[in-house]
Amino acid sequence: MLSHTLRSRGEAALADRLALSAATTEGSQLATADFHGWLAERGRANAFRVDRIPFAELQGWSFEESTGNLVHRSGRFFTVEGLHVTERDGPYGDGPYADWYQPIIKQPEVGILGILVKEFDGVPHFLMQAKMEPGNPNLLQLSPTVQATRSNYTKAHQGADVKYIEHFVGPGRGRVVADALQSEHGSWFFRKSNRNMIVEAVGDVPLLDDFCWLTLGQIGELLHQDNVVNMDSRTVLSCLPLPATASGALLTDIELLSWITGERARHDVHAERVPLAGLPGWRQDEMTVEHEEGRYFNVVGVAVQAGNREVTSWTQPLFEPVGTGVTAFLTQEFDGVPHVLVHARVEGGFLDTVELGPTVQYTPGNYAHLAEKDRPPFLDSVLDASPDRVRYGAVHSEEGGRFRNAESRYLIIDAAEHDAPLDPPPGYTWVTPGQLTWLVRHGHYLNVQVRTLLACLNALPARAR
Amino acid sequence: MLSHTLRSRGEAALADRLALSAATTEGSQLATADFHGWLAERGRANAFRVDRIPFAELQGWSFEESTGNLVHRSGRFFTVEGLHVTERDGPYGDGPYADWYQPIIKQPEVGILGILVKEFDGVPHFLMQAKMEPGNPNLLQLSPTVQATRSNYTKAHQGADVKYIEHFVGPGRGRVVADALQSEHGSWFFRKSNRNMIVEAVGDVPLLDDFCWLTLGQIGELLHQDNVVNMDSRTVLSCLPLPATASGALLTDIELLSWITGERARHDVHAERVPLAGLPGWRQDEMTVEHEEGRYFNVVGVAVQAGNREVTSWTQPLFEPVGTGVTAFLTQEFDGVPHVLVHARVEGGFLDTVELGPTVQYTPGNYAHLAEKDRPPFLDSVLDASPDRVRYGAVHSEEGGRFRNAESRYLIIDAAEHDAPLDPPPGYTWVTPGQLTWLVRHGHYLNVQVRTLLACLNALPARAR
Repeated sequence: MLSHTLRSRGEAALADRLALSAATTEGSQLATADFHGWLAERGRANAFRVDRIPFAELQGWSFEESTGNLVHRSGRFFTVEGLHVTERDGPYGDGPYADWYQPIIKQPEVGILGILVKEFDGVPHFLMQAKMEPGNPNLLQLSPTVQATRSNYTKAHQGADVKYIEHFVGPGRGRVVADALQSEHGSWFFRKSNRNMIVEAVGDVPLLDDFCWLTLGQIGELLHQDNVVNMDSRTVLSCLPLPATASGALLTDIELLSWITGERARHDVHAERVPLAGLPGWRQDEMTVEHEEGRYFNVVGVAVQAGNREVTSWTQPLFEPVGTGVTAFLTQEFDGVPHVLVHARVEGGFLDTVELGPTVQYTPGNYAHLAEKDRPPFLDSVLDASPDRVRYGAVHSEEGGRFRNAESRYLIIDAAEHDAPLDPPPGYTWVTPGQLTWLVRHGHYLNVQVRTLLACLNALPARAR
Repeated sequence: MLSHTLRSRGEAALADRLALSAATTEGSQLATADFHGWLAERGRANAFRVDRIPFAELQGWSFEESTGNLVHRSGRFFTVEGLHVTERDGPYGDGPYADWYQPIIKQPEVGILGILVKEFDGVPHFLMQAKMEPGNPNLLQLSPTVQATRSNYTKAHQGADVKYIEHFVGPGRGRVVADALQSEHGSWFFRKSNRNMIVEAVGDVPLLDDFCWLTLGQIGELLHQDNVVNMDSRTVLSCLPLPATASGALLTDIELLSWITGERARHDVHAERVPLAGLPGWRQDEMTVEHEEGRYFNVVGVAVQAGNREVTSWTQPLFEPVGTGVTAFLTQEFDGVPHVLVHARVEGGFLDTVELGPTVQYTPGNYAHLAEKDRPPFLDSVLDASPDRVRYGAVHSEEGGRFRNAESRYLIIDAAEHDAPLDPPPGYTWVTPGQLTWLVRHGHYLNVQVRTLLACLNALPARAR
């Protein structure tokens, strides 16, 4: 027997410290009232401009001759290809189609999205970055400490080093609070995942330009505002191992895992990469790849000029959705314990067929042409909810490095009596926020939209005070 | 607020009942001493014969003209295709090659492997089946209650109904004890997973021919014997939520998840399906597809005649490894708590790049031609272990429905002092059996060989008494 100090497998003390940070609505570093002044100042310090350009003006990007795929000459970054998705015996109430073609982004490398944590005055603070991204409607938003593709930190961009990366990888890294490979948008990315990390710093951390320390309570307040906290921040924040507020639930944890397993097993989905050239239902001109009926999204090109990116100017393709999405949880208390209604969603780019999505996750315009019976379940309940039922509402945008003006209204809505069946329709089930926090320790359970909503659920107390 | 009785999310009482079954070495239904007589009797009742045949005599199977892939004319069951695996910047100590071609089985549908549980005299018993499979060296082994491909239970075999399936799917199913999609052999299957289920029956369960009720203690005794408990049983048994025997570990659970995430992120593996025809390094004649150096495995055809299969005679391809494998955990106590050394393995067919494998999982003959420095880590330590260090040893075979004479010696070996570095080489880490049980609730963490070893670890007390 070797002698070595074992440690307790669990981390109860950590959960309590995170809860303290969530309850602290004024940080000791940057006052919440001063935040927007600071952010605007960072915007002025970093001139930034984005223009739509024809595909022919993309530098280093071209449509590959044999496939029509949009590729970079280095073979790195990402490609835009075609995808053919078929669901045998489907669909099962999660969309009107069981067979479709679409463009998709293929970017197999795993990036790091990381937030650094450090205590000030006994309260954990989170190091956030004011970061410009070309697809953001307002360009500048609050990002994680580190937001780096593998190309970034292995220098394929030929740009500057990634700041603070040494806290997340390598021998000197800090104490890990959370670390999981989480999926990105399954409707736009082919099997893309990023490493979501939260790390507590060891020793002093210098504060660089464009960065600020905030408590979870402060970030919770900002999450109530439109287009401030970017998607990468939201998904990382959702991974926080906050303490569960209730020990009971409608489903035991075993039953919940079994329900997810059953949903994965009953969906027989095949996603096959196909050439972008001649993709059925899609057309292309010198400015745009678009759906023939004008639905879903366009592929476009942009030119970017910026001061604080790793390289100072570049061109790139972006996906641009055709409308604002609606992404919502219906919520309901059972025996006093809040539950949310999750949906086992099939998205063509998921690694493992199905992940848990929100109750509603749709761009309504894409469904407007459908008959009543083919419209997504619960969509009308959410769209018609009276204001007194809206417990949370804010517009957030998706990753501005790949998606342009990809805004959704994120909502948490008290379910009306007729929306809240104890035994919901196939593909839907009630879970507690604590069960979502339990699942998000592992990858490929919660899709990126549910992770945003989980971060918003955790932020509800910040406004309730 | 709706009124509904919430339940505790955890299942502590269940774990205690399973521990009672594990401690019960004599069942109330079939005495352990009578087991082999019963099994032999079932063998006599079900005549069964397997013959090697040329590919041309396979009925319904042929090499597809355009690709050379081995396919069934119905388009169902499975196909044998080619796979090209490349690891950028690899390999990382888990094999000498970073680029290889191999045949692989593609069978995208999800099957069910399920064991039914029922209490007799207050002790949970498990319903096991005497089942013939053409690839088993001894043909007849002990299988789960239900072992059904989707084709099986949707009748593509045009055979009999799957017995007891109603306890696992549909409205009348029992209480779920475990339910997860687990990977199958990543070196032989392309992204195959099966639903591993344990379900406690509600109400009476008639005992049919070929089935018997055993306690976990009885099954533990049988797991110490060669080629009795089949792979499907072993993987399902590994999913049992047995109580953890220690609360401490070298790594906290968060650190363990972070380590796994890091291993997944650092391996940049691409697996591309390619035609079987002309696969580099492989050759084919009328009887066999084989590696040019005679390594790894052969693809062969067999004709089967049986009485108790869903259909009474058939032909099919099987994979036949060229030698007996060695699959082993090194184990070591730290501060009195047993740990095993796991290896983050890349296998070409894994869905998510890396799963945890045993310390050693190799067919030694495949590595005999390599220089000392290229031989797999810890292999020689295991092969050279003195008998007093062997805490467990038995020969088990892999799934007999796809693999022929695929035997491995499964070993649990006390590590020698020099084998047990507190800080093991990259790609290896120490975990407790309790942490493995915690991980196996979720799919794609533990490969099928580790799951067999976990079932064996749980069976150690059955012989210790």
